[in-house]
Amino acid sequence: MTTRTRRPRAALATGAVAIAASLVLVPTAALAATPADVAQNGGAARSIDDSTQALLDSVQAGPAKNVILLIGDGMGDSEITSARNYAYGAGGTLPGIDSLPLTGQYTTYSLNKSGPNAGKPDYVPDSAATGSAWATGTKTYDNAISVDVEGTPQDTLLEIAKANGLKTGNVSTAELQDATPAVQAAHVAARSCYGPDTVEQCGDDALDQGGLGSISEQIIGTRADLTLGGGAASFTQTARAGQYEGSALFDQAADRGYQVVHDAAGLDAVTAADQTAPVLGTFTDGNFPTRYAATTATVGGADLAPQTCQPNPARLSTDLSLRSLTEKSIDLLDGDAGFFLQVEGASIDKRDHSADACGQIGEVLDLDEAVQAALEFAEADGNTLVIVTADHAHTSQIVDSTPPATLSTALTTVDGSTMKIAYGTAAEGGSQQHTGTQLRVAGYGPGAANVVGLIDQTDNFFTIVNALQLDRDLDGLSADATVSAPAEVAPGATFDVTASGVAGDRQVSGVLTPAAGDPVDLGTVDVIDGVATFSVTAPDELGSATVTLTGVQSGVVLDAAVTVADGAVAPAPTASASPVPGSGDGSGSDGAGVVPGAGTAGGGPLAFTGSEALPALLLAAMLVAAGAVLVARRRRAAGTFDHSGAQH
Amino acid sequence: MTTRTRRPRAALATGAVAIAASLVLVPTAALAATPADVAQNGGAARSIDDSTQALLDSVQAGPAKNVILLIGDGMGDSEITSARNYAYGAGGTLPGIDSLPLTGQYTTYSLNKSGPNAGKPDYVPDSAATGSAWATGTKTYDNAISVDVEGTPQDTLLEIAKANGLKTGNVSTAELQDATPAVQAAHVAARSCYGPDTVEQCGDDALDQGGLGSISEQIIGTRADLTLGGGAASFTQTARAGQYEGSALFDQAADRGYQVVHDAAGLDAVTAADQTAPVLGTFTDGNFPTRYAATTATVGGADLAPQTCQPNPARLSTDLSLRSLTEKSIDLLDGDAGFFLQVEGASIDKRDHSADACGQIGEVLDLDEAVQAALEFAEADGNTLVIVTADHAHTSQIVDSTPPATLSTALTTVDGSTMKIAYGTAAEGGSQQHTGTQLRVAGYGPGAANVVGLIDQTDNFFTIVNALQLDRDLDGLSADATVSAPAEVAPGATFDVTASGVAGDRQVSGVLTPAAGDPVDLGTVDVIDGVATFSVTAPDELGSATVTLTGVQSGVVLDAAVTVADGAVAPAPTASASPVPGSGDGSGSDGAGVVPGAGTAGGGPLAFTGSEALPALLLAAMLVAAGAVLVARRRRAAGTFDHSGAQH
Repeated sequence: MTTRTRRPRAALATGAVAIAASLVLVPTAALAATPADVAQNGGAARSIDDSTQALLDSVQAGPAKNVILLIGDGMGDSEITSARNYAYGAGGTLPGIDSLPLTGQYTTYSLNKSGPNAGKPDYVPDSAATGSAWATGTKTYDNAISVDVEGTPQDTLLEIAKANGLKTGNVSTAELQDATPAVQAAHVAARSCYGPDTVEQCGDDALDQGGLGSISEQIIGTRADLTLGGGAASFTQTARAGQYEGSALFDQAADRGYQVVHDAAGLDAVTAADQTAPVLGTFTDGNFPTRYAATTATVGGADLAPQTCQPNPARLSTDLSLRSLTEKSIDLLDGDAGFFLQVEGASIDKRDHSADACGQIGEVLDLDEAVQAALEFAEADGNTLVIVTADHAHTSQIVDSTPPATLSTALTTVDGSTMKIAYGTAAEGGSQQHTGTQLRVAGYGPGAANVVGLIDQTDNFFTIVNALQLDRDLDGLSADATVSAPAEVAPGATFDVTASGVAGDRQVSGVLTPAAGDPVDLGTVDVIDGVATFSVTAPDELGSATVTLTGVQSGVVLDAAVTVADGAVAPAPTASASPVPGSGDGSGSDGAGVVPGAGTAGGGPLAFTGSEALPALLLAAMLVAAGAVLVARRRRAAGTFDHSGAQH
Repeated sequence: MTTRTRRPRAALATGAVAIAASLVLVPTAALAATPADVAQNGGAARSIDDSTQALLDSVQAGPAKNVILLIGDGMGDSEITSARNYAYGAGGTLPGIDSLPLTGQYTTYSLNKSGPNAGKPDYVPDSAATGSAWATGTKTYDNAISVDVEGTPQDTLLEIAKANGLKTGNVSTAELQDATPAVQAAHVAARSCYGPDTVEQCGDDALDQGGLGSISEQIIGTRADLTLGGGAASFTQTARAGQYEGSALFDQAADRGYQVVHDAAGLDAVTAADQTAPVLGTFTDGNFPTRYAATTATVGGADLAPQTCQPNPARLSTDLSLRSLTEKSIDLLDGDAGFFLQVEGASIDKRDHSADACGQIGEVLDLDEAVQAALEFAEADGNTLVIVTADHAHTSQIVDSTPPATLSTALTTVDGSTMKIAYGTAAEGGSQQHTGTQLRVAGYGPGAANVVGLIDQTDNFFTIVNALQLDRDLDGLSADATVSAPAEVAPGATFDVTASGVAGDRQVSGVLTPAAGDPVDLGTVDVIDGVATFSVTAPDELGSATVTLTGVQSGVVLDAAVTVADGAVAPAPTASASPVPGSGDGSGSDGAGVVPGAGTAGGGPLAFTGSEALPALLLAAMLVAAGAVLVARRRRAAGTFDHSGAQH
């Protein structure tokens, strides 16, 4: 027997896989629209030759240096297919989405929080539960933003990557408070807890109720290196409690060192995004306008003349397209540290809810361009895992004939043929529903093999954690923290107290206990590259004062003893690269006695960690010999995630 | 950085991949229903550890010895998901379908045959076009059974595998004339051309119109080693033309050597299935009854009390379940030659059309059991490619709330939770539509890597051809054919003329041309293992007679010269392993003078092929020296598939 497969020209091109490449993407020759010889034997085949070696070439074990996770909200296989049909033809190829070489499906179910089926599967999830699933590895209920069914916050990929020293980014065409971007940066019981003004929705999560604060406030506190999207409106609201009570959130962000930008020019001017000066870019009050003008499906609509999708005049400048934002993000995040970047094409879902065929198709195409950008970077970089998937399936279906009772639209595709799209899960004017179908998940790069076969949405969390070799024990990442402070300061002098090695925390809180009198709240300081620096004004009382710093998330406690003595030599000033936040604004106990501003004291501190197993007496002798302050570290007994103390 | 992923018990079990196995299936530990600790971090993950090596272990290059292709008709991702949810839980695993390690998606569009979009994509295909796509590698129009858009027959996987000497099987829970089984065995312009009585539907394809005959008649002629399913009714019809005119098709099959069985006992008694005695098993007049009793979706139905699926009392004995038929088929086909077997779970589609949630779920579970049987064999065999996929997507959607205007049903799943399934593409009582969504395709075994990524439905044809290393040049497979006949026979004697090496043909036709008088039609004989034997009665006319044999499909022409001489020594009888069909029944020219029955003549024939490059004179000299008849072979100029001559 011999093999004599026929190879039409189009298929030959497809078969020309570049084996030489270290990682194999679907070759660009396959990107043509429905081929002209589609009716010939083999004319429609996408890969007529054996592709076993090409598959093997596409498999690369981890670790990966970078991960880019691209989410098409509501982008089920039906949405992918209709967009391909429309723009590239049934036999064509979405240049981004279809090019990832490794593919599988995942289950997306959520859990019922209450009711007769509490704790049992909810077969049709929302974007909050699904986003939480991949962001945290934990199944939860619809409406939950990275809290489990009991309401306990779960560490997110973005938080974990950041704690491990990677750069992080979060990009969406939706309001940044919308579920998909929110799940990486916030922990709230109800997804609608957008800002300080959403009092009722936030409930116990509000700062003034002792919670972690609204999604917008938590986004600022999570301090990704960059956060780009819509949702400016919530950031114009004013904090109702906490350290920044009375300030608008945008002002708070600026106070905390953010580069706050609102338009393409502002973003274009950004040349670096890091923990010292992270980027908060909000380009619309709400969601981004879509690429295509909306079409409205109607009962019998697919029997009307087929339409062609029209550009949406309200669309943002292409400088702010999802592709442009993705490219900019990669430029800003790429470096020695590695990065984790989530990119969401949000309005596939939103337009599907509205039975808007052109709307949803345009948003798939927009996401596809972002995927292309990610793949171009990953291919050049050689050490980046790209995953493309969705959060849940949706209503739209490609049908043969016009359904009698439900909404539909007919479109003329690039094939010159007519495609009918139907929406059958809600009445006219209602919101079409998500559906519970398993979803495509596709990958490229180191670790991408983990998407193949049947996985669960929560598997994506582990795939990314494994690929980036992240240490998930965030408390442990702060366990070896040290604190440094001058041994002796003059009364009223300003000096720095610095917690180092607190990478497992996003904030550190401080309290100054003078030799006599009430403790003074030093407020909360953001951890920047594992370091939190407090500028402290020495009390007037002479004698031994203690500065106690507590990791807000890890609960690690660090005590620095400082002797306040008349005539103490002021230490040489220490330059601080860290912006020092406003403080003493009335949060907690009275902040009197703490002077905000650049540190003017410090220098020559001696740091110890509590984990050093030195006998106490020897330690004390060393301290005396060195003339240093007593530095002690107490490890909180309960090592679980502490959300009650955040933002205080 | 260190990796410290948490491993809940359930996930640990899932991660315990048996690397030692040469090919890796998803381990059975992953088959549990939704895990009890689903709400815990990692509790829902299906593979918490890196699975890169497991994927690599699952990739095996071809060739494969055997291929089992299992089709769930209408089994889109929604149908898979709802069946999993119902029977195994949202976090559970379909033991067969979900276990294949390599997965991808494929596009299923067909082509418009006529109308303003003629030749352009039809985004929602039917089972005929889609089955033809994988059976032949050619995109065609809805309604077409393995003919292209021009109506030209395209060789099918089954035909090609058989011509290459593999054993072949075709199994379905539908009528065997239904599109999916039909595409492997027949070539008609309209799928409804079931039998001799479907005169209008068959049109030009009917035998009496010079066509290839109805699907049922072509199934007999294609002569797979086994064909099992429903659809007995059409085989009770009587041929209206051709060699078997006036006979019921079942009788024709028996005449042509088939083992015809109608029930479990009959099938159980079958111990071999081969070309000498292939098996035609039809167990119902129409389609098989379904596993579960039907549920009927109604407007608002999902707001009624959730139902549990009930057994269908009419279901066939489990001896005739799709799993049992698959196991029996494998038993009968497995051997040195290798095999190609197609298995269809047909009524997922049919129950989806009827908005019958329990019906479709039961059929997915039935197919899943057949997939388990296939995988069990393949895993033990180590050299079998298994592909599991569908032909087209369908209507059913898992929804969160009861749609207001469309049909729905609520079911209580094994999770103890409620699942709502909606049908929104047709009115109550109407036929719910196929949809155009891309489909899951999954594979296991040598060559299975070809399913990963985005492929087209036609790619499956090439994947299987490549894996089995099939020679698609069927004309070429008959190109070296030889013919043998006795050199000299007495007038009126009966002798054998045998065409050998005609593997590219399914039938050979014969004509006897006496020294004087009219040529005598010898009828058509089935090729059995590459051989076709005619029993011929010598004419009364003395002198040189010629027996001309023609490959019905390849067109290869073989001439055998026989000298009719008084007193010729009757050659020693040759035992024939081949059943000799009834002939001389009036087809074509008058068959008088041809005596059917076992050959009594022959022996010592000398065979030559036309491809031997011997000078003609030398050849003639050799023939004279050997005292043999002149044997010549003429190659028909047009080497294309010849359907006009079949069954004549």
